[in-house]
Amino acid sequence: MTGANPLPVTVVGLGSMGRALAEVFIDAGHPTTVWNRTPAKAAPLVAKGAVQAGEVSAALAASPLVITCLTTFEDTRSVLEPAAATVSGRALVTLNSGSPADARGMAAWAAGHGARFLAGAVKNVPAGVGAPDTLLYYGGDRAVFDEYRTTLEVMGGDTVHLGNEADLAALYEMAVGAMLLPALVGFFQGAAAVQARGLEASSTVRFAGKWLDMIKSLLPVYAEEIDSRDYTDAGSSVNLFLAGADHDRDLAEETNVDTSWLAPLHDLVQRAVEAGHGDHSVSALTELLRKPEPVA
Amino acid sequence: MTGANPLPVTVVGLGSMGRALAEVFIDAGHPTTVWNRTPAKAAPLVAKGAVQAGEVSAALAASPLVITCLTTFEDTRSVLEPAAATVSGRALVTLNSGSPADARGMAAWAAGHGARFLAGAVKNVPAGVGAPDTLLYYGGDRAVFDEYRTTLEVMGGDTVHLGNEADLAALYEMAVGAMLLPALVGFFQGAAAVQARGLEASSTVRFAGKWLDMIKSLLPVYAEEIDSRDYTDAGSSVNLFLAGADHDRDLAEETNVDTSWLAPLHDLVQRAVEAGHGDHSVSALTELLRKPEPVA
Repeated sequence: MTGANPLPVTVVGLGSMGRALAEVFIDAGHPTTVWNRTPAKAAPLVAKGAVQAGEVSAALAASPLVITCLTTFEDTRSVLEPAAATVSGRALVTLNSGSPADARGMAAWAAGHGARFLAGAVKNVPAGVGAPDTLLYYGGDRAVFDEYRTTLEVMGGDTVHLGNEADLAALYEMAVGAMLLPALVGFFQGAAAVQARGLEASSTVRFAGKWLDMIKSLLPVYAEEIDSRDYTDAGSSVNLFLAGADHDRDLAEETNVDTSWLAPLHDLVQRAVEAGHGDHSVSALTELLRKPEPVA
Repeated sequence: MTGANPLPVTVVGLGSMGRALAEVFIDAGHPTTVWNRTPAKAAPLVAKGAVQAGEVSAALAASPLVITCLTTFEDTRSVLEPAAATVSGRALVTLNSGSPADARGMAAWAAGHGARFLAGAVKNVPAGVGAPDTLLYYGGDRAVFDEYRTTLEVMGGDTVHLGNEADLAALYEMAVGAMLLPALVGFFQGAAAVQARGLEASSTVRFAGKWLDMIKSLLPVYAEEIDSRDYTDAGSSVNLFLAGADHDRDLAEETNVDTSWLAPLHDLVQRAVEAGHGDHSVSALTELLRKPEPVA
């Protein structure tokens, strides 16, 4: 229980994440109203004490704070559109993936219907919802964030307002999320490589974990270099990564693993050396990732 | 101090890592002999109590355990070759990067000159040398590892023997190390993206760290899927990453950042969907990274 009179909360969209969100509100004693396109998904939540609304408009009418957890902003708008009249005056919080442009479109829709708006993202798996270190970040109306902060924190203790622009969570999602697939494919490739030697993929987990810890420890240093655009104090130089490119080619030869996806990265490193960054920190690669501004 | 009679140790190669290694041996009370091609680099170690050898052969003669920390196996052999007669009977431990093939070549050289051999790698930055959780792993002669384990642990408490094959550390370095550049470029790209919005690269550090923690937590699950080749219990499906490819394109458009290096990864995801892995766990991408065996 978070207090004597926990705020009524509505959760729209009961996929695995939406169900996890509704559950922590129920567990925290919030009167919780739920709605899902396929009503059967609400059953376990109703068994725990949630109220299932038959119509989206009834779901919205039930609570001052409405959290949607659908797949895209387009889905969210198409679900809310029939209940647009009811959205007025409520705090609408979307938790879905999407582009910054789509987040801005959603914000315009919410403003057009008189809703106050935050667009956020849950930075954890459903099982992590409600944990003290689970991160959720939001862009949009600061006053909504401040007013409902305690309730938002029920979903994860590490709750952050990025700024008043409604597309900021989408921007950070895209910006930071771009690490995920490359890091995973790097891991999969290593797994395939050791398997080619008759070893288990699982034998790489502990070592890959150490690499990730090391990478994490380096990020503040690299970010500072990138912000200052001073790359001269190189812990790991671009030249070092140029030498490392040979290892990726060796890996392909030794273990019959396809490392060709790394070719554009090797090319990037090569171009950085040619641009005079050889002895600079590897973070100088950032300079080559910025496209030149189009000539006006 | 590690005991009443700490083992004499020789460190050959005094770059930043070699110096860090020599230092922890000195600090732990080991009689430490050092040699470097540029002798001046030894001065701070001599000031702390190390003995500087004038010739490589004298450095080798000083200790039963000889640790080399040069750039490549080729460098290591060219440095040791003039002292090859002295290497006989010693435990030679190389700590450098290189291909498995080069590690095997080094092992053959060591065997040919009567040395017992381990080829290892330090999985940390020089400042981390000697820490209880610093990982070093070795491939090669298990008896050498067992005999000198306590001394090897001075360099890092997390000390692992991978197997009797001398190329295993090189294999794991390449296999697991292939995560590094892609993960970093993913981070740099995100940094450039938020900068394009007038925000600081440093503002992404905390969020990127959470992503890395999440990735780390997923590795055991993915490794198990890869080992069992059962990808059917998908936490995050290949289809989910297909949708994510749009975000990378949105990022390029929104922030004028060059995301073209991700194209081969998007292609990999697309091919996995076409191969029937759409609803499978993203770890099924591993199947497409294995090159077909050449037809005999």
